[in-house]
Amino acid sequence: MLKSPLLQPAALPRGFRLQGVAAGISSRPGKKDLALFFSERPAAAAGVFTRNIVRAAPVLVSQKHLRSSLTARVIVVNSGCANACTGDRGLHDAQWSAAAVAKQLQVPEREVLVASTGVIGHFLPRPALSKGIARVAERLMQEDPESVSNAVEAILTTDTRPKAASAHFDWQGRRFTLWGCAKGAGMIHPNMATMLAFLLTDMGLPGPALRADLSWAVERTFNRISIDGDTSTNDSVFFLANGAAGAFARPPRDLREVFRNALYELCRSLSEQIVADGEGATRTACVMVEGARTEKDAARLAATVATSPLVKTALHGADPNWGRVMAALGRAGVRFNPGKVEVRFGDVLVCRNGKRATYAEKDVHAALKGSEVRLTVNLHAGRARSHYLTCDYSKEYISINADYTT
Amino acid sequence: MLKSPLLQPAALPRGFRLQGVAAGISSRPGKKDLALFFSERPAAAAGVFTRNIVRAAPVLVSQKHLRSSLTARVIVVNSGCANACTGDRGLHDAQWSAAAVAKQLQVPEREVLVASTGVIGHFLPRPALSKGIARVAERLMQEDPESVSNAVEAILTTDTRPKAASAHFDWQGRRFTLWGCAKGAGMIHPNMATMLAFLLTDMGLPGPALRADLSWAVERTFNRISIDGDTSTNDSVFFLANGAAGAFARPPRDLREVFRNALYELCRSLSEQIVADGEGATRTACVMVEGARTEKDAARLAATVATSPLVKTALHGADPNWGRVMAALGRAGVRFNPGKVEVRFGDVLVCRNGKRATYAEKDVHAALKGSEVRLTVNLHAGRARSHYLTCDYSKEYISINADYTT
Repeated sequence: MLKSPLLQPAALPRGFRLQGVAAGISSRPGKKDLALFFSERPAAAAGVFTRNIVRAAPVLVSQKHLRSSLTARVIVVNSGCANACTGDRGLHDAQWSAAAVAKQLQVPEREVLVASTGVIGHFLPRPALSKGIARVAERLMQEDPESVSNAVEAILTTDTRPKAASAHFDWQGRRFTLWGCAKGAGMIHPNMATMLAFLLTDMGLPGPALRADLSWAVERTFNRISIDGDTSTNDSVFFLANGAAGAFARPPRDLREVFRNALYELCRSLSEQIVADGEGATRTACVMVEGARTEKDAARLAATVATSPLVKTALHGADPNWGRVMAALGRAGVRFNPGKVEVRFGDVLVCRNGKRATYAEKDVHAALKGSEVRLTVNLHAGRARSHYLTCDYSKEYISINADYTT
Repeated sequence: MLKSPLLQPAALPRGFRLQGVAAGISSRPGKKDLALFFSERPAAAAGVFTRNIVRAAPVLVSQKHLRSSLTARVIVVNSGCANACTGDRGLHDAQWSAAAVAKQLQVPEREVLVASTGVIGHFLPRPALSKGIARVAERLMQEDPESVSNAVEAILTTDTRPKAASAHFDWQGRRFTLWGCAKGAGMIHPNMATMLAFLLTDMGLPGPALRADLSWAVERTFNRISIDGDTSTNDSVFFLANGAAGAFARPPRDLREVFRNALYELCRSLSEQIVADGEGATRTACVMVEGARTEKDAARLAATVATSPLVKTALHGADPNWGRVMAALGRAGVRFNPGKVEVRFGDVLVCRNGKRATYAEKDVHAALKGSEVRLTVNLHAGRARSHYLTCDYSKEYISINADYTT
């Protein structure tokens, strides 16, 4: 099933290896649940993590390692167990798995980053993990056409499909590649809910630049998507830049711009794939708020509309209920003049000067029936704009989430 | 069907009359959709309204009338059309309906309050409303054992049952009555979503005292319930106190306390009935947060847990997923030590010191299976506490909301 060109080893940036195995951590027998993302040389490393106060052990360990080392060599990821709300034992487990990987691959322990996703409150099964780490590390060094798809599959939980993307650019006769994969599905919300993304590039650039560019891109992509408004204890985006195709101690400004744009496209593609695969989602919507006084206002309004259960259920029914959009805008905590608001579903103007415009229900219904819907709000109060990606709420969402742990 | 003693005319406080008719405003043929709440003498009046920036025309008109008159005589309510996002025409319609009622009942226009609930963005049908007002006003003055149930039914939309409550107290040999009815169902959230409540009492007390007591009670009842986190353009709680059983220009402190408690019980009962009748709800949950530093912290944490879609779907499946409670707490924007948190489902301790406690899944499942569930969080950081009432998310919620306007 995973035969996309993006899941072939040749799609990776130079100097990276991936592999994934079924280690028996997940409760689904045979489900691949342990992956390694490995750089053959030390890579500049950056991470962006959940802002939830309740942070999982792997997040704490990865943050510590990123503080103590400028570079990283490998990320070890498991699904099936979030290792969150597990206290000291969970911290020891996360640290221990970093040490086990470090030993297997003969790299410094602080150059190992850790990520987990799955059920909260359960402990990692050390014996299974120990065997799994030995096996995945061994297979990592072998040629294997399935290696990338194995890794990409191993990070998934309730996702129905793998999510990968790549971007390329040329600079002074050299080709640079960015590649990434992600997992999402439920709990996706601003500030990155149960969401993991692993980004790799063979360009080399200094850590501070890497971190700045990652934060910039995450803010405009992963932090502007929502599935259900919940955020998780484990969200992490990792970025490794190993310089195998060329490194720049002080990248010129135009190169930096090309790089940023490629990174943005990579993150945009992955975040769109996450929303499209939202639990039970049948369609996605891009909520665009224009004409706001500030970008912050626009972002807050877009987020409130995009996460409103009533808007999301109306979206599911392709129901042209723009009144729910108005009601959501009104409770966002942003001052605006309701009498100036304009709302469009697709290209159809449904609300003008805060009241019903003249439109045919069937046109709006048609605009809402596709798999990708646009919902545009104009406040006519300024020039700032922002957007949010969201998906509809279906009965399937309820089914998936009503008995996740049992 | 509406044969509860609470829906008999004898249940009302003295000096009030109610009536409801089917005026043809609602799209459901024969649905009662127009009601009058009438006091035979001028009553001290108070109102608490939605904090949504987008306010419906009837809210604006009622606020204006409450500012310009200390007393009120009648509230005219329609369902089937919210008269929200209807611009100047909507304002004229709301004002016109107040004037029509004033003329029919020969009371000053500013002593008429107005409330509407239903679909946003549609205009009130003036001809139907005009005939309906004449008819309901005429029937208001006739003896009719169905009059109260007619009115209570006329204010409902997606509600599956009428909601009414009463409270009594005795003071110096006199009996005082408080009575109220409400409509709710969807869009119920802090600050009163598509929610209307009409409270009546035959005690008389000055307007400022009435307003203070109403705000106090609403903050602790209607503002602590949530069905889907959305708030509406039309929410209003009205309170009329006509003094027909006795009036107090300066009610003594102990009388005031007895009165407040009765009002609180009235509001508590109505707000619980609203949550229990949440769209598609199969059970309700009281989320209690204890051991917080401040009541504000506790309220914010309780609200975040109570409105989390993942908590609400887990509740639907009676799924003991306390990790979702932790994740919701962590994103509430309140500082606390996750390592001290305790979570109970019913009486079962499921999380202690921020990690899994020792419990049997079947005990927790049993604690979650009832129609009323308790979910208690203790932060062990202070002595403040607060709570929120919520209900589960079912597939039925999606069905009801996916095609409301069409």
